[in-house]
Amino acid sequence: MGIEALLFDVQGTATDFHSTVLGALRTASAGRHPGVDWVEFVDRWRARYFDVLREAKVGKNDWTTVHSVYADALDRLLADYGVADFDDAEREDLACAWQRIVPWPDVVPGLTRLKTRYTLATLSNADVAAVVNISKLGGLPWDAVFTAEMAGAFKPDPAAYRMAATYLGLAPGQIMMVACHKYDIRAAGALGFRTAFVARPLEFGVGGAVDVEYEDEFDVNAGDFLDLADQLGC
Amino acid sequence: MGIEALLFDVQGTATDFHSTVLGALRTASAGRHPGVDWVEFVDRWRARYFDVLREAKVGKNDWTTVHSVYADALDRLLADYGVADFDDAEREDLACAWQRIVPWPDVVPGLTRLKTRYTLATLSNADVAAVVNISKLGGLPWDAVFTAEMAGAFKPDPAAYRMAATYLGLAPGQIMMVACHKYDIRAAGALGFRTAFVARPLEFGVGGAVDVEYEDEFDVNAGDFLDLADQLGC
Repeated sequence: MGIEALLFDVQGTATDFHSTVLGALRTASAGRHPGVDWVEFVDRWRARYFDVLREAKVGKNDWTTVHSVYADALDRLLADYGVADFDDAEREDLACAWQRIVPWPDVVPGLTRLKTRYTLATLSNADVAAVVNISKLGGLPWDAVFTAEMAGAFKPDPAAYRMAATYLGLAPGQIMMVACHKYDIRAAGALGFRTAFVARPLEFGVGGAVDVEYEDEFDVNAGDFLDLADQLGC
Repeated sequence: MGIEALLFDVQGTATDFHSTVLGALRTASAGRHPGVDWVEFVDRWRARYFDVLREAKVGKNDWTTVHSVYADALDRLLADYGVADFDDAEREDLACAWQRIVPWPDVVPGLTRLKTRYTLATLSNADVAAVVNISKLGGLPWDAVFTAEMAGAFKPDPAAYRMAATYLGLAPGQIMMVACHKYDIRAAGALGFRTAFVARPLEFGVGGAVDVEYEDEFDVNAGDFLDLADQLGC
């Protein structure tokens, strides 16, 4: 297909935020809030992040960090659930759980194989610092980190994808966007990027509602990063 | 010193452009131009790059790639030296030699040790694509690639250093700028960054004029990246 580089979504596609953030909440609660459904809490926390990004009318000069979005949403959700006994330091540490999310088990071996043949970069809506922290903790071997913050626009805004192509010095057709979220790869595909869908059935935990159907519209449909490496000849 | 991250200059500090570019020119010439002093040619090529950057009044919307600066300068220099028998493909390949420059021998082992303790990123005036290509070829284990292109301003413009601090989510005092060029670390130091000077006596080849004097004004003076790792406790 003439592909030179792969761009990867991070939260959900490369990493398992659900178990990491759920674990952090349960550890912080330590059983003190038996009436709280922490699984639902994580789902609502993540949903709030999507709501803010969808509404975001931002530019490079008034950028809102995703960390602050998660921190604000946490305060609101804790109030909604009637949890008042987390102090500021505990809240900050919980918001930082999104910077400690761990890779899915197939990710490091899959990326290691893909890296032998392709340039690998992130294209994430998370903050640069968050992607750097996640990648360093998890040993993710990116050749470059690109994020929405560098474009002044969140995915699926075309500016985010175009920024990555400009920085790589490649045409969209030489780049494949890899994500478990179809809106993300559809937006890239509409700009001429190649597309790879990776199913992540556990993105929202066991029994969570997630779209894992393969679609003919994508160039590749893969079960995980090892399957992606197989299909891309690595 | 409370340092969390190290920023590295690439061309000269981490990599030996002189031998790579000189080798590419000599290979392309294949002895056909006995009157040309290719060592002097490389020095003038590099000097032209500095002249253009110094004069550059650029913003994010009218960015000049460094690749085009090198390509334009090559055409002028070949004309100056009366070399007319390089075709367009050969000229393009020569300009791309700046994206194939190899790391100094101490760089990969030094970075590998430093990476165990610090976040490592580039802060280069070269294009993102060039730094990605150089890093991939040389196996340079950066946690992130930052370049002037991302700031819309070349070092020593304060905007370049501040961009890196913003993206890392760190204060200048938590970041050390590492370079063999004193103007670069002095500019960072004036903004509150920590500074490390690394001597590169062969930057312009054997006998080339280069300032390798240690200075008390820098937080660290090092002979190479292994010495830097020693001094930073890695």
